[in-house]
Amino acid sequence: MARVVVDVMLKPEILDPQGQAVQRALPRLGFDGIADVRQGKRFELDVEGPVDDAALARIHEMAETFLANTVIEDFTVKVES
Amino acid sequence: MARVVVDVMLKPEILDPQGQAVQRALPRLGFDGIADVRQGKRFELDVEGPVDDAALARIHEMAETFLANTVIEDFTVKVES
Repeated sequence: MARVVVDVMLKPEILDPQGQAVQRALPRLGFDGIADVRQGKRFELDVEGPVDDAALARIHEMAETFLANTVIEDFTVKVES
Repeated sequence: MARVVVDVMLKPEILDPQGQAVQRALPRLGFDGIADVRQGKRFELDVEGPVDDAALARIHEMAETFLANTVIEDFTVKVES
């Protein structure tokens, strides 16, 4: 079964308090040299049938209408080998 | 600045209620043909300096001790071009 990954991240101009919390905690934990952290969501979809252009268009629409809030979030759709 | 991505997903044997909720909602919304959905976290780290083996080892340790709960989660570390 083919796997398609949808990554959803806050747009760069949107404040990311989760990512900031992680970034600020790192030096305390002994990890330096990380200038910025952004935290987002990863969806792994197991797709029945072939992942052709029609299936990808459907998944794109699904991501746009349901998985991501496109007012504040960007998303990418990738087929995993 | 180099970007390193850490993906954190629940282990396959761990129940994923968030992913299940998404999967069950899809047919109601008119999207069929998705057999399974797993939801996880994606961290985008902006790394200062070169991303050499030492830096990647440090990020691996950071992911293992801090970003993921390795009792129930798997993680992958990838350098983004």
